[in-house]
Amino acid sequence: MAFNMVEKHSSAYSVTWGINDIIYTEKTPYQKLFIIETEEFGRALVLDDILQTTINDEFYYHEMIAHVPLFTHANPRRVLIIGGGDGGTAREVLKHKCVEQIDLVDIDERVIAVCRKYLPELACSFDNPKVNVLITDGVKYVKSQKNKYDVVIIDSTDPEPMGPAVQLYSSDFYQSVYRCLNDDGLFVAHTDSPCFSFGSDNFRDFWHRINAYFPLTKAYITCVPSYISGYWSFTLGSKRYDPIRDYRHDTSIKTRFYTSELHRACFVLPRFMQELIAKKPKE
Amino acid sequence: MAFNMVEKHSSAYSVTWGINDIIYTEKTPYQKLFIIETEEFGRALVLDDILQTTINDEFYYHEMIAHVPLFTHANPRRVLIIGGGDGGTAREVLKHKCVEQIDLVDIDERVIAVCRKYLPELACSFDNPKVNVLITDGVKYVKSQKNKYDVVIIDSTDPEPMGPAVQLYSSDFYQSVYRCLNDDGLFVAHTDSPCFSFGSDNFRDFWHRINAYFPLTKAYITCVPSYISGYWSFTLGSKRYDPIRDYRHDTSIKTRFYTSELHRACFVLPRFMQELIAKKPKE
Repeated sequence: MAFNMVEKHSSAYSVTWGINDIIYTEKTPYQKLFIIETEEFGRALVLDDILQTTINDEFYYHEMIAHVPLFTHANPRRVLIIGGGDGGTAREVLKHKCVEQIDLVDIDERVIAVCRKYLPELACSFDNPKVNVLITDGVKYVKSQKNKYDVVIIDSTDPEPMGPAVQLYSSDFYQSVYRCLNDDGLFVAHTDSPCFSFGSDNFRDFWHRINAYFPLTKAYITCVPSYISGYWSFTLGSKRYDPIRDYRHDTSIKTRFYTSELHRACFVLPRFMQELIAKKPKE
Repeated sequence: MAFNMVEKHSSAYSVTWGINDIIYTEKTPYQKLFIIETEEFGRALVLDDILQTTINDEFYYHEMIAHVPLFTHANPRRVLIIGGGDGGTAREVLKHKCVEQIDLVDIDERVIAVCRKYLPELACSFDNPKVNVLITDGVKYVKSQKNKYDVVIIDSTDPEPMGPAVQLYSSDFYQSVYRCLNDDGLFVAHTDSPCFSFGSDNFRDFWHRINAYFPLTKAYITCVPSYISGYWSFTLGSKRYDPIRDYRHDTSIKTRFYTSELHRACFVLPRFMQELIAKKPKE
């Protein structure tokens, strides 16, 4: 095919994906949406020119954003996913039999509809009766809820300054997340790459914003090869459970990336990340 | 500046670096050499159009290729580095006071000369009297040595089919490395990214080639953000010491990436890498 997709992260760095096909394209009220067939990672969802998830490497991301918080909570029954319109995170959460209800709040119903059609490997989760989809603004929704959820997962797009997700990384939002959690609740968000200059300040700032409300704040690291630098941070804020002290072993859940040993290991940060966290931001 | 550098890893994936300056260029008898100033990671060494090391992220790589094997050995005194012409690995090895001699074997004397001039932060190690530089073919050198080294570090370019380093990933070479090590010796090599289709077979094949000679073969994972996918594997072959059971704690050595906790954690592989290793290659 004659097309490449260029992800321009900054003037300093961009990635060019060879693509075999452009399968679908739409301008939704919120973002530009593409389904493409990448040469390296197979079919992929692209929002606002950034690759969101691919069939071949989605499990790295979805398993680590779902199983780390779910195995940290002693008995997660009600789970809230903000974003997650491709369905991959819900699919992993559903592997935990103790979960009774997943509320999935996405602002853009077109993402869900298109993923149901073109990414059924992920969007299969929407057919499960435990999954309750709400098409609304995640920020407003979270603000309207109190003491309702055991686990909240923020599975949005990146905090680009002008994108729809920027408010999902604000102090106000983290305070609302705290309030919508039960007394032993916890949440997780993906918090940028700590390696690149345009991500490391984000990582540090998000950590401190979360830590301002949660008694226990811990960052963990995994790889998402289709994301910039590969090395991707997640930050967990918890009211009671400690992901290292309290996590449950359960080998009955089938995974391709996550293991119990990796659950412990992913919280071991390299020294430069420890030092990033130790520096308080100016704000 | 009007230049970008495009790293074309395959038709499926390439990375474009914004660059502020092209500082030096030379065609050596072995490879094309550039010193450039990248916008994101500062000054960098480029060989045959692939970024080898940058001032801003070199410590991720050099600390993890040096300190993991050095801290695994009980008393490393003689160390051999194959490649390593930028000097970064030798700089990290020199932090271990027990090391009495480092033989650094690079086939291309121009890399060393140019790095001494343009990358003094790394090449400073060449001024240390413990460092003995030999300009010769690493494959031939290793074949000519017997029971001489405590630790061998393979710090070469990637195993591109036509590059000067391809023999450094062969079964014959690993057998020679085994023979040039003392009875309690160990070695480490970087063994490609396990995430991309063109790296995962390499990772598996190298692991099995090493395991054919060494009683203990263990892979570990770290991040090198300027390398493809970020997620980079290293494989350690050891005659006696186990990197988890036997490693030494020593907090007197100053690092920016490596910590003792990370030494343990980096050997915890995601399930798909365990499964890659479990599959025996056909060869």
